[in-house]
Amino acid sequence: MINRLTSEERASQLAGLHGWQSVAGRDAIQRHFRFADFNEAFGFMTRVAIKAQEMNHHPEWFNVYNRVEITLSTHEADGLTTRDVELASFIDSIAPGPLAT
Amino acid sequence: MINRLTSEERASQLAGLHGWQSVAGRDAIQRHFRFADFNEAFGFMTRVAIKAQEMNHHPEWFNVYNRVEITLSTHEADGLTTRDVELASFIDSIAPGPLAT
Repeated sequence: MINRLTSEERASQLAGLHGWQSVAGRDAIQRHFRFADFNEAFGFMTRVAIKAQEMNHHPEWFNVYNRVEITLSTHEADGLTTRDVELASFIDSIAPGPLAT
Repeated sequence: MINRLTSEERASQLAGLHGWQSVAGRDAIQRHFRFADFNEAFGFMTRVAIKAQEMNHHPEWFNVYNRVEITLSTHEADGLTTRDVELASFIDSIAPGPLAT
């Protein structure tokens, strides 16, 4: 069992992330990425997939060509937990710099 | 340059596909897949990604855990073309049987 982030945890932990936005109507965060091409986009997704499987915590994501949109939330807690922050931090660490949107 | 399918091509070529539905408001087709788990789902996506790159024709797709939703359309033709039929046929050929929805 894992609990949703408290208000204090939310303020401190989400502040350390880069480019993640709240999702309307859900306790979730989302970030959009743009890559040079599909090869780079799917390579990035593969790195995230391996990490997600290791954590047993999986993203909701959409891809078309060089764009990737990732939404994170913890189903069993019905909202954001430390698992989302951990996965988001990993994603930030491998995200491209200048092209990210 | 590639042209959209004619009415005759549409009738004959789409009939050979399995489980693909029209998308409301777009000249596109979509199919939903369900797998045993994320490992199987992402493995399937990786096979599709390699084929897509080989064809230089890429899907729009969404994944969460064991579910994958794939939408096919040809951007430069603003609708369905033989490329979509070819990629859909490949996807059908590697899609799981009993669990596919």
